[in-house]
Amino acid sequence: MARPRTPLLDRTRIAAAALRLVDDHGTLTIPALAAALGVRPSALYHHVDGRAGIIALLREDLCTSIAEGDYWDQPWEPALTAWAHSYRDAFAAHPGLVSLLATAPLTEPFLHVMYDRAVAVLRDAGFAEKATLSVITALESFVLGSALDLVAPSVMIDLVDQTATPHLAGALAALPSRPARADQAFELGLRAQLAGYRTLLAP
Amino acid sequence: MARPRTPLLDRTRIAAAALRLVDDHGTLTIPALAAALGVRPSALYHHVDGRAGIIALLREDLCTSIAEGDYWDQPWEPALTAWAHSYRDAFAAHPGLVSLLATAPLTEPFLHVMYDRAVAVLRDAGFAEKATLSVITALESFVLGSALDLVAPSVMIDLVDQTATPHLAGALAALPSRPARADQAFELGLRAQLAGYRTLLAP
Repeated sequence: MARPRTPLLDRTRIAAAALRLVDDHGTLTIPALAAALGVRPSALYHHVDGRAGIIALLREDLCTSIAEGDYWDQPWEPALTAWAHSYRDAFAAHPGLVSLLATAPLTEPFLHVMYDRAVAVLRDAGFAEKATLSVITALESFVLGSALDLVAPSVMIDLVDQTATPHLAGALAALPSRPARADQAFELGLRAQLAGYRTLLAP
Repeated sequence: MARPRTPLLDRTRIAAAALRLVDDHGTLTIPALAAALGVRPSALYHHVDGRAGIIALLREDLCTSIAEGDYWDQPWEPALTAWAHSYRDAFAAHPGLVSLLATAPLTEPFLHVMYDRAVAVLRDAGFAEKATLSVITALESFVLGSALDLVAPSVMIDLVDQTATPHLAGALAALPSRPARADQAFELGLRAQLAGYRTLLAP
């Protein structure tokens, strides 16, 4: 019997090619993806629901690792801290996905379950219902921006004339080198946000 | 006398075309920019120092409005609050620039002056020198992520089955509609971060 042939196209292969495209070029179009896979654009539509469907595939791949984390059986602060770290790490590996995924609708049920648990942890801790998703959204905005900072070039500020900006020069000299520099900002900002949210809770 | 002809290419026209390209496609390449301007790629190099030079042009255009703000003659909290608002508004108008500018080196002297003033305000307020740029970086990460959230589609979470995720359904129902939803998260996260940074100061 002949061995089954590898199908030309399936969702896994489409997702892998789309991720390479976004990693390399920071953008995703159906024609470019079809060209990368050596198929006609129409062939993609047999497997995925257009560009939105491909973005959903990418999110599924990236966010499964985030959603699978076992954060939520802890108090809200260690839970959100662990979630934020896992989230930043996943996006820092694929910074081209930050803009793409941050601005596409969340249609995946497994992500709804993740948010449901996060909301429940905050509710149980005493946060007002109307504040829970704002806390989560603000933390996500910080995490996504921090993922971009983590992949920024090693010298974000290269001062030619240090005497013109002496305060900045001193502050730069006091910073660790990368990636500790990005980590320090992330840890400080994360702790600051959580400390701020703590003040929303009744004493 | 003949009227002077509009030059085919200058830095202003290059910047405008590059911005349209990023706004429309979220990405910037020299071949695509040359095609949009109807010139050969080599022609661009007479005016700008390659892709990095074009990114610097875009940053100059976008960040001039941020840097010109008169924030720094106030105490650090209102100063950073006003700066963060101006920063988010500028990037929310061009979300495709978030990834591009967040990961390119800061070479512009006028931005060094802005950071110099921000560091000075924090130093004067009593922040340790080694914390100043981490505070600024963390706040920037939050602002950039929040700019993406501001342009996210109006329904980020569309729950098909509300009974599967009752906590999330309740939290969504308690949120205002957009853009107030994004504003609420931004204001809450900003206040939380500043409250957290306040704890770094000696009492």
